[in-house]
Amino acid sequence: MCRWAAYRGQPIYLEELVTSPAHSLIEQSHCATRAKTATNADGFGIAWYGDRPEPGRFRDVLPAWSDCNLKSMARQIRSRLFLAHVRAATHGSTRRDNCHPFVCDTWSFMHNGQIDHFDRLRRSMESMLDDGHFNARVGTTDSELLFLLALQFGMRERPLAAMAEAIGFVEQLSINLTGSVKVRFTAAFSDGHTLYAVRYATDAYAPTLFAAPMGEGGHCLVSEPLNDDTDAWMEIPAGSAVTLSEKGIEVTRFQPSVDGAAVMKPALAS
Amino acid sequence: MCRWAAYRGQPIYLEELVTSPAHSLIEQSHCATRAKTATNADGFGIAWYGDRPEPGRFRDVLPAWSDCNLKSMARQIRSRLFLAHVRAATHGSTRRDNCHPFVCDTWSFMHNGQIDHFDRLRRSMESMLDDGHFNARVGTTDSELLFLLALQFGMRERPLAAMAEAIGFVEQLSINLTGSVKVRFTAAFSDGHTLYAVRYATDAYAPTLFAAPMGEGGHCLVSEPLNDDTDAWMEIPAGSAVTLSEKGIEVTRFQPSVDGAAVMKPALAS
Amino acid sequence: MCRWAAYRGQPIYLEELVTSPAHSLIEQSHCATRAKTATNADGFGIAWYGDRPEPGRFRDVLPAWSDCNLKSMARQIRSRLFLAHVRAATHGSTRRDNCHPFVCDTWSFMHNGQIDHFDRLRRSMESMLDDGHFNARVGTTDSELLFLLALQFGMRERPLAAMAEAIGFVEQLSINLTGSVKVRFTAAFSDGHTLYAVRYATDAYAPTLFAAPMGEGGHCLVSEPLNDDTDAWMEIPAGSAVTLSEKGIEVTRFQPSVDGAAVMKPALAS
Amino acid sequence: MCRWAAYRGQPIYLEELVTSPAHSLIEQSHCATRAKTATNADGFGIAWYGDRPEPGRFRDVLPAWSDCNLKSMARQIRSRLFLAHVRAATHGSTRRDNCHPFVCDTWSFMHNGQIDHFDRLRRSMESMLDDGHFNARVGTTDSELLFLLALQFGMRERPLAAMAEAIGFVEQLSINLTGSVKVRFTAAFSDGHTLYAVRYATDAYAPTLFAAPMGEGGHCLVSEPLNDDTDAWMEIPAGSAVTLSEKGIEVTRFQPSVDGAAVMKPALAS
Repeated sequence: MCRWAAYRGQPIYLEELVTSPAHSLIEQSHCATRAKTATNADGFGIAWYGDRPEPGRFRDVLPAWSDCNLKSMARQIRSRLFLAHVRAATHGSTRRDNCHPFVCDTWSFMHNGQIDHFDRLRRSMESMLDDGHFNARVGTTDSELLFLLALQFGMRERPLAAMAEAIGFVEQLSINLTGSVKVRFTAAFSDGHTLYAVRYATDAYAPTLFAAPMGEGGHCLVSEPLNDDTDAWMEIPAGSAVTLSEKGIEVTRFQPSVDGAAVMKPALAS
Repeated sequence: MCRWAAYRGQPIYLEELVTSPAHSLIEQSHCATRAKTATNADGFGIAWYGDRPEPGRFRDVLPAWSDCNLKSMARQIRSRLFLAHVRAATHGSTRRDNCHPFVCDTWSFMHNGQIDHFDRLRRSMESMLDDGHFNARVGTTDSELLFLLALQFGMRERPLAAMAEAIGFVEQLSINLTGSVKVRFTAAFSDGHTLYAVRYATDAYAPTLFAAPMGEGGHCLVSEPLNDDTDAWMEIPAGSAVTLSEKGIEVTRFQPSVDGAAVMKPALAS
Repeated sequence: MCRWAAYRGQPIYLEELVTSPAHSLIEQSHCATRAKTATNADGFGIAWYGDRPEPGRFRDVLPAWSDCNLKSMARQIRSRLFLAHVRAATHGSTRRDNCHPFVCDTWSFMHNGQIDHFDRLRRSMESMLDDGHFNARVGTTDSELLFLLALQFGMRERPLAAMAEAIGFVEQLSINLTGSVKVRFTAAFSDGHTLYAVRYATDAYAPTLFAAPMGEGGHCLVSEPLNDDTDAWMEIPAGSAVTLSEKGIEVTRFQPSVDGAAVMKPALAS
Repeated sequence: MCRWAAYRGQPIYLEELVTSPAHSLIEQSHCATRAKTATNADGFGIAWYGDRPEPGRFRDVLPAWSDCNLKSMARQIRSRLFLAHVRAATHGSTRRDNCHPFVCDTWSFMHNGQIDHFDRLRRSMESMLDDGHFNARVGTTDSELLFLLALQFGMRERPLAAMAEAIGFVEQLSINLTGSVKVRFTAAFSDGHTLYAVRYATDAYAPTLFAAPMGEGGHCLVSEPLNDDTDAWMEIPAGSAVTLSEKGIEVTRFQPSVDGAAVMKPALAS
């Protein structure tokens, strides 16, 4: 399990989520209170959108609390939309390439959760990718592969629908190959304009997700509230998708789907 | 606060302390039970004695639990005397040069504890070192400086006496410069033949220290027992020094002393 | 291009290849004289065989010349058979998982060379691996994949024949998929008993390989001679395989082969 | 010897010095043409001024050419005044704390050069620092110590004069303690408003320094020209100081001075 925080709104310093709040993301890197593991010390990462279409990204393998670069950058960089993540490794070794957020052209993605039996599903998941997405894979995590799968399934045009198809595909695959399925998935992703998040699980333990207004018309999405002001934080229920755009915050229902066309045409067969 | 383990006896694989036991040192790096901090993820280090007079040393800044090199080395290397440490930083940033054990020619040293107001004492402590020991300092921790101070005070000839003088000097200095004193010090050190340890504090909270027989005639010293076999582990009382040599284990009283000659002749005045 | 050195014989300290000689492997990490690139600073690694069937391994991403751990280990560890490598990255980012030697159970492998158009061949190469070898892949280099391919093709039983088939398969694949082929391959590999090396290229530029006697009845194999004693070093001609075993050194002809059975039965079809 | 580049003017992306030019700073990290060492792979760092009085800073120990974070940041971050450095270590191990630029409150400093016999001068240099500057020292390089010495000598009020006094003090010290003196010093430093640089040596080998206009009314200062447009680059002669401010570029004479008052009142005596 990991912890993450994301923001969309008027530009703010990264530190307003990452280091300054009482229960900031760095605080959560060693004292998470709502996670299976209190310690999230297997690296960290930030993807932030500025003047360019693609995000900047900064990742490293040290615990977030001890990285001076992170503190300095969080204090200097302002962004209108960013994703920040601290990792507790489940699949994949501790190295930069396995740290979230993952980035593919203008898209960024980060994830808290896990896919049971990933080792037995990985190869079939990879076989769904076309050569472009296949070659974009540099790490070994289930998270990166879910991201690439969603991109393959059309995330650029239909973000939430493609994500629902990616999860649905993995669930079906798990049933087929292992006879059972357990997926926990609380993730955020963005194209640099809209910020999406999903909270979902096949069981009753979907990793937590909270939203709160921040700054002038902005919002943040977090694994755990950044402070004790319980009135400010809205818990997003399991089985939900959140969309943060110019229109504000929208919470809709999220459930995995199986899109026949996508699944029937594996990349390798084309 | 940190966690450490040390061994002297017939050669054993490092893993018998570091990775294999139920509550191994790596386990303690994320789930210490008797420490102020459960997480000791600010680096680790091992010093082991083999065929050469000086020890080998391997240190790194990742959490011990995620370092593949450590696992592989612990499984391959056998040693008759070694020190192993996982760090939770108090003074000094997370970098290799601040990871224990510290080594100076044939001597090695590692420490769990702290000196209050170290920032105000550091300069005067350093001024006691002669040029050789001063130039040997590469990090910024209180621990390394205590080690060099003990070497300066005669550790090579009178290990426990010199350590008692080093602690005594620091305590006197703290009273003089800050009007108060708090030192907690549970440390192990060795010349490659004899293994020494000390458990001491100016208050009632001396960091824990346990001893147990291991292998054929060998012993280990640890911050926390490596398993639940409570009969096997002897808690070393505060105010004690432990000496492991060919004669077996010896526990004696330890209290700081002020050796007039050493303190009167600061290095800079010579 | 990279630089490497390997040894088989009576146990010697790693430093006798890695740090001590006038033109040691560390020296070659910044001043290689017979390589396309003089600087080999994208990480390093050592695999050494001791008392266990599987090798120990130590890899890191810093330039070899600045890593204190490497120096200390090379000075302490003695081994009867070891492989040491400094990397100049061609394919794959700078991270531990991409540093040679690669290890799979008792086998180790390191490589200097390259496969042209690897990005277009990679996926088909991976598709030849059965699930066990596929899941053993953790990095993104062509070298690791060649190693796994050779293991898949029977390296454990027929080391040189399987390697010849792996190279032959890649060459055929390159012709099929890209219309051309360029492979340069100077590699060492071992099961902990016998040390094998190959020098081969599809063009006239097979990376150099030299052999010399070392210690009592031992031999070393290196990318570049470790000193100026030109009489001591035998250049291994391109298109050769070297076998170091209890019988001494044997140099035989090496050329890629296409073993019909292996190629006809891709793992995914089984 | 190291390589560096600095800029003052209208905000530009860091990449315009660091990664984009034909002979960018990253290019110089492996192929410097005017340095004693072609390879500058012992870490890198950037200090940039944005909306806050103190600079942001990003440093790491990998070769600059292989660090993905550096590439991404250089592409995203725009700054009106920044310093960038790639290191070839002379004094001090490879670790972040020894990477330039050094920062103290709003000031930043980076250096290419060396002080002969630094090991014998270091302690006396440190003894000139008051407690605040002494405690600000975290690394072991001569460069950081020169910076702190200049701050101690009044850099905040009289930047070039204080630097001249710091160099003068070190030269005098070297003559007194070692009977000889050799200092090579090409450095840049800034308070976030004005950018200063010095090219100086006690012998005929002052490390090179070039200046060129860049962007609208801006200038850059570099160890080596960033491209082959020889007309654009002005070589700054040895024994010079450069001041880049709102008034444009000013080159004046620089020679070390001994300010009696500063040298007579060592910090420890006060």
